[in-house]
Amino acid sequence: MDLWFTEFQKEGFGITIKVKETLFHEVSEFQTIDIIDTEAFGRMLLLDGLVMTSEKDEFFYHEMISHIPILHHPDPKSILVIGGGDGGTVREVLKHKSVEEVVLCEIDGLVIDACKKYLPSIAGKLDDPKVDIQVRDGIEYIAQQKNQFDIILVDSTDPMGPGEGLFTEEFYKNVNAALKPGGIMAAQSESPVANKREMGLMYPLLRKAFPIVSAFVGPIPTYPGGYWSWAFCSNTVEPLSYFDEARAKEITKECKLYNPDIQKSAFVLSNFVKNIVEVD
Amino acid sequence: MDLWFTEFQKEGFGITIKVKETLFHEVSEFQTIDIIDTEAFGRMLLLDGLVMTSEKDEFFYHEMISHIPILHHPDPKSILVIGGGDGGTVREVLKHKSVEEVVLCEIDGLVIDACKKYLPSIAGKLDDPKVDIQVRDGIEYIAQQKNQFDIILVDSTDPMGPGEGLFTEEFYKNVNAALKPGGIMAAQSESPVANKREMGLMYPLLRKAFPIVSAFVGPIPTYPGGYWSWAFCSNTVEPLSYFDEARAKEITKECKLYNPDIQKSAFVLSNFVKNIVEVD
Repeated sequence: MDLWFTEFQKEGFGITIKVKETLFHEVSEFQTIDIIDTEAFGRMLLLDGLVMTSEKDEFFYHEMISHIPILHHPDPKSILVIGGGDGGTVREVLKHKSVEEVVLCEIDGLVIDACKKYLPSIAGKLDDPKVDIQVRDGIEYIAQQKNQFDIILVDSTDPMGPGEGLFTEEFYKNVNAALKPGGIMAAQSESPVANKREMGLMYPLLRKAFPIVSAFVGPIPTYPGGYWSWAFCSNTVEPLSYFDEARAKEITKECKLYNPDIQKSAFVLSNFVKNIVEVD
Repeated sequence: MDLWFTEFQKEGFGITIKVKETLFHEVSEFQTIDIIDTEAFGRMLLLDGLVMTSEKDEFFYHEMISHIPILHHPDPKSILVIGGGDGGTVREVLKHKSVEEVVLCEIDGLVIDACKKYLPSIAGKLDDPKVDIQVRDGIEYIAQQKNQFDIILVDSTDPMGPGEGLFTEEFYKNVNAALKPGGIMAAQSESPVANKREMGLMYPLLRKAFPIVSAFVGPIPTYPGGYWSWAFCSNTVEPLSYFDEARAKEITKECKLYNPDIQKSAFVLSNFVKNIVEVD
């Protein structure tokens, strides 16, 4: 019997993936969590039936959300990851030698447990002594943090279900207040192909919370439209205003995607993406 | 009844698209040709069951294969498109005012006829007086051309079926001989995600025919892996060695994707793509 998992990514469009085995299936307080094994992408994490990450293409997402913002900071020490219970973003953050502490604030402890057990190549650094795991609501957590972090990475699900509150003006303002001077937030900001409406709603809210708001983009094969975006927000740091080539080259050695040229090209937006995020 | 078209893009992976109506279905001398109407991507051309182009995402492919190489030439007058019977590449080529003649060499006249009838937004410029349509085998045609074209665009299907002969050393050498001094060839070179093997075979062949071989990349939602590559080949023109910003800005006004920054960022390759095409 052939089993196929299909994710419907937009009206009348989906991806379909042959499943070798379902390794994990539980319904947590927040969502349905599945880990499946596939021929095409290795093991995959699904939340409420949507692909979150896969062994074979996770690097597209995790390298971009982490290295692009972190390499804009001259001395990043304290990093907060909101969401990201699979641990892939934390793993990338820890490649930066200056980092002293990574707080992972994930609402669903069961996601962390399942990924530690079934996705060790992604979650394998969650037990690093620099990592402080907070299993709690990122919205409540961030409201209590002031002037704490050099970098905040919002590694959320889509703006529905448990991730919904991470796409509000109030949340972004609290993130801003939690940043130290010179701090930067990066947040996944959906697909310019499949989620134009959601992107179009998100960027005006970001602009209410941050004076500097930009976007960077890259391919992600298993995400809707195969093409993704992240917001880059700061009070003082303009995109590409700071860059330490030597540090970027060190990170490049440990990456499948990232290199110093990607740092610059990521901020180059196609005309239709500029229209969505209202950049000239 | 819901009808879904599924294209299996690699082992155990595919895209699935809801079909409103099949507008055209015929088996030509060379291949099966379908034009379907879909909610997600508008009308789509399928050859042997594989997506070639769609009304909603065709610009990703056609703008890249044409404007990137053409804007490397100071005065492109004569252009050859091999394959590309849907007419999208020809439409983009004609946006360049210096162009005096576009030869379209497409093996399958039925593709041209079907696209003219059912995909007018893509094929609508095939009747332009500057366009010379040659319904014949590109392999035979190119062998007879010497020192004829400023730009040659190989807008082929995959390296199997009718497109197979367009991925050989002999073909590339004949393309080179058909170029005028200062000429450039661009050729679609498959997906770095889904067709690593095919890409890895193609670039060494290109290097046997051209001293300058580079690659450029971009997203294409309905193509395998959502991420595509094109080869850039020349005897004398290095990537980004010539660029007329004013001309590029004029073209930008007529484009959904292309702008002067894309010209540069397209040649930025991720580490894993460099490995496939063996670029340092």
